[in-house]
Amino acid sequence: MAKLESINDLFMHELKDIYHAEQQLVDALPTIGEKISSSELKSTMEMHLGQTKDQVKRLEEVFDKLGQSPQAEKCQAMEGLLDECREIMDQDADSAVMDAALIAAQQKVEHYEIASYGTLVTWAKELDNREVSELLGKTLDEEKQADEKLTQIAKQSANERAMK
Amino acid sequence: MAKLESINDLFMHELKDIYHAEQQLVDALPTIGEKISSSELKSTMEMHLGQTKDQVKRLEEVFDKLGQSPQAEKCQAMEGLLDECREIMDQDADSAVMDAALIAAQQKVEHYEIASYGTLVTWAKELDNREVSELLGKTLDEEKQADEKLTQIAKQSANERAMK
Repeated sequence: MAKLESINDLFMHELKDIYHAEQQLVDALPTIGEKISSSELKSTMEMHLGQTKDQVKRLEEVFDKLGQSPQAEKCQAMEGLLDECREIMDQDADSAVMDAALIAAQQKVEHYEIASYGTLVTWAKELDNREVSELLGKTLDEEKQADEKLTQIAKQSANERAMK
Repeated sequence: MAKLESINDLFMHELKDIYHAEQQLVDALPTIGEKISSSELKSTMEMHLGQTKDQVKRLEEVFDKLGQSPQAEKCQAMEGLLDECREIMDQDADSAVMDAALIAAQQKVEHYEIASYGTLVTWAKELDNREVSELLGKTLDEEKQADEKLTQIAKQSANERAMK
């Protein structure tokens, strides 16, 4: 990591971290999708994969607006979160129980992103870069909606199916 | 991890995971506190350390209510989150910039816990264990408040100081 001398340095570090995190997610989501049984959850996750790909492009747009080439910095937290996901997927589990477990794991991923984009939006505002704060704010809203959708699926159907 | 055959299995796995996560946090918070300069942030983090110790005890109470001995399962995500924290602390940074960076890192930790306790509360309700869902709900509320408090410190003072 480069020296942290200003909010701008922090912003750039966080941007590279979430760029790496989103890339890891684009790679991981199809494999996670294969383990899902519920059609509603499957289609939600497929939609979220498309959204995640768009979010990667949006981050590239942010780098571009800042006059920089997109650059990733290893995001250890997302690695840990996805390791936990893989550990669950390796389990022998009833299909409805697996769905409930994967929802929980995915909500942790969403919360990592909510925290990261929340910070990025705040810092972009401090740096008076309205265009960038709006772009990142769009992703922040999408992550919050994705988390809410997963809560809804868990409460309305997935957990109930797993209880049987 | 044991076989995942029911929501109860998932609940127990998640409980052991967050028990390990909270223990890691109790170990890490004093070192993080040493790197903080702002007195408001320092006292917030000290208060949160006390709260985290209580949350560990609350988890032990939950294990007890379920007739089990407290048991930890390696939480890779929290390891990754705290590795990121340590990476930041190893940086040579202006003190106000370090404070802003540590707030961001700590908010990621809070969000991990919000996701985890959110799931645990939902599952405890599905399992009709009101006592346990209330205990864990208390911690969930504390984590949300801790996250909001950090947002408030960042927006009201820490970021501004780091901009100078």
